[in-house]
Amino acid sequence: MHRTPKRYTISPLGVVHSRLRSRSAAPRQGYKGAPSAWVEVFPRAAPAMKGISVGHEIILITWLHKADRKTLLVHPHGNEEVPLTGVFSTRSPDRPNPFGLHRVSVLELKGSRIKVKPLEAIDGTPVVDIKSTLRLSDDR
Amino acid sequence: MHRTPKRYTISPLGVVHSRLRSRSAAPRQGYKGAPSAWVEVFPRAAPAMKGISVGHEIILITWLHKADRKTLLVHPHGNEEVPLTGVFSTRSPDRPNPFGLHRVSVLELKGSRIKVKPLEAIDGTPVVDIKSTLRLSDDR
Repeated sequence: MHRTPKRYTISPLGVVHSRLRSRSAAPRQGYKGAPSAWVEVFPRAAPAMKGISVGHEIILITWLHKADRKTLLVHPHGNEEVPLTGVFSTRSPDRPNPFGLHRVSVLELKGSRIKVKPLEAIDGTPVVDIKSTLRLSDDR
Repeated sequence: MHRTPKRYTISPLGVVHSRLRSRSAAPRQGYKGAPSAWVEVFPRAAPAMKGISVGHEIILITWLHKADRKTLLVHPHGNEEVPLTGVFSTRSPDRPNPFGLHRVSVLELKGSRIKVKPLEAIDGTPVVDIKSTLRLSDDR
């Protein structure tokens, strides 16, 4: 048996500023008409932005702070005619560790702010990591 | 200004069982020759697996527990001839919130264990979330 610690602590490294103000206003995925948004990177993490340029694609990992962490089963797409499915085989925001994954393009850089598109995360969503994409065939 | 809580707590939902025992033994990315591995999903999260099937592609989010969380700048690919770059524009495991992103295929299911490939995460790596992939053009 492996022993893993029971918990880890993460601190937000940034925050989303968006015109999307509520989950009900947000599209289910970025590609479904999500707007551009600004990611404010906090000062302590700002050096880690070095190398991000306009035109790059990056992956944001967010913490979906409005999620219900007790949800294990959902009706996909909110359609109650679809049988209940485990959240691990969906992109439901409701899940035990509610991470959001967002592949976005960098539109603009201003100090420690990054304008990206498309982003379905709502205003105030914490950003917990940013990664480069890999070559296209291996993006994850 | 948005106010975000200073920290969030995450609990591992599973753990990687792999023949890769150390970071030095692990390829830098899954597609670089990483082996198959078993993901053990812990009982409290096992219901969330419903719907995952052999042949599916899924995305694992891991917690890279051996990472150095103080690293903000790295030489990409460990090559000191490449200028220091911010970790947000790389896939370095060393970063303030050391999440790993792994797109893998499901090879086998056995109870609450999922055999996947390829996975470059080392033995004992905590799994903190599992997601479905989206349609190919929008995977992230």
